[in-house]
Amino acid sequence: MAHIALEEGMPGITGAFAFRPETAKPMRELAEILLRGPNTLTSAERETIAAVVSHGNECRFCQLSHSAAAAEHRGGREADYAWIEAVKANPAGADVSPKLRALLQIAGKVREGGKQVTAADIEAARERGATDVEIHDTVLIAAAFSMYNRYVDGLATWQPEDAASYRPMGKRMAHEGYARSSAEAVGARS
Amino acid sequence: MAHIALEEGMPGITGAFAFRPETAKPMRELAEILLRGPNTLTSAERETIAAVVSHGNECRFCQLSHSAAAAEHRGGREADYAWIEAVKANPAGADVSPKLRALLQIAGKVREGGKQVTAADIEAARERGATDVEIHDTVLIAAAFSMYNRYVDGLATWQPEDAASYRPMGKRMAHEGYARSSAEAVGARS
Repeated sequence: MAHIALEEGMPGITGAFAFRPETAKPMRELAEILLRGPNTLTSAERETIAAVVSHGNECRFCQLSHSAAAAEHRGGREADYAWIEAVKANPAGADVSPKLRALLQIAGKVREGGKQVTAADIEAARERGATDVEIHDTVLIAAAFSMYNRYVDGLATWQPEDAASYRPMGKRMAHEGYARSSAEAVGARS
Repeated sequence: MAHIALEEGMPGITGAFAFRPETAKPMRELAEILLRGPNTLTSAERETIAAVVSHGNECRFCQLSHSAAAAEHRGGREADYAWIEAVKANPAGADVSPKLRALLQIAGKVREGGKQVTAADIEAARERGATDVEIHDTVLIAAAFSMYNRYVDGLATWQPEDAASYRPMGKRMAHEGYARSSAEAVGARS
């Protein structure tokens, strides 16, 4: 049971968003810009950063839903779902571009704490082609999921048990996005 | 030096906001609602939660600026500045209402990780008069500062050395707020 009176049957962050629409609005907008807005990083890459950070923070709802979003951005095949599981299990050895591998390293440090990021981490990402905006957005995605993860688990929100029910959620997140109102919340009452 | 090319002389988060106005907008809106929006918790109480979380995360820019905002909301006397320093040093024994002391306990747990919050922490806050919205907002303020702190330090933003220069910043944050555009950013080029 959630720590406060959230509407039943709304999974994870959607129940919290419905409880407090005032704060949901900027939080949804931030996710939409970071994960689906115009960017030289693909949405699949940005959802992968979100999934890896959420996995590190052991937030089941966020890591499964954003893993599904990453997989859906890549085509939604079983191989894509297997791929994101492998990336989360071992980001440093992941089957991704050298640039994304370096950005995942930065994201992992930000998750632990902002001061953990070193000049060498930044230099490694730059050498692999990362721009300043890409580094900025990686830091902010990791920081933002340090918020979303704590929000979801700090309220003890209800979360579906079976991994399969996160796939339709990920599909909607990938293709319809985050900016809709709480009344039509992603995954609501699914 | 910051990890990416932020404009020089803009302290802490203001330089990052100016670098990426698209993400600055929802981040400013969230801070404005959480810290200055209509609420049964006073702005002084909410800024105190923000300062305590930022102190725990060792984010010098955020903890000094939000400490100043908390002190300014209480009147801005030397005693108010001394008071917030004492609260940060020992939140569990702080000279605050029993309700705020219980909410600071929840915020401290959220800072460590969402799953650290127990039913007993929530019950203690309820027994001291906290409502569901107050508990929700405490969790979200602590989660949001887990983001802002990581954003500020993960980019290695420039931060004024002397504690005194955070006072005019805190005064503006308390009395003018967070919702202004990046061009007129709080503390910009001060």
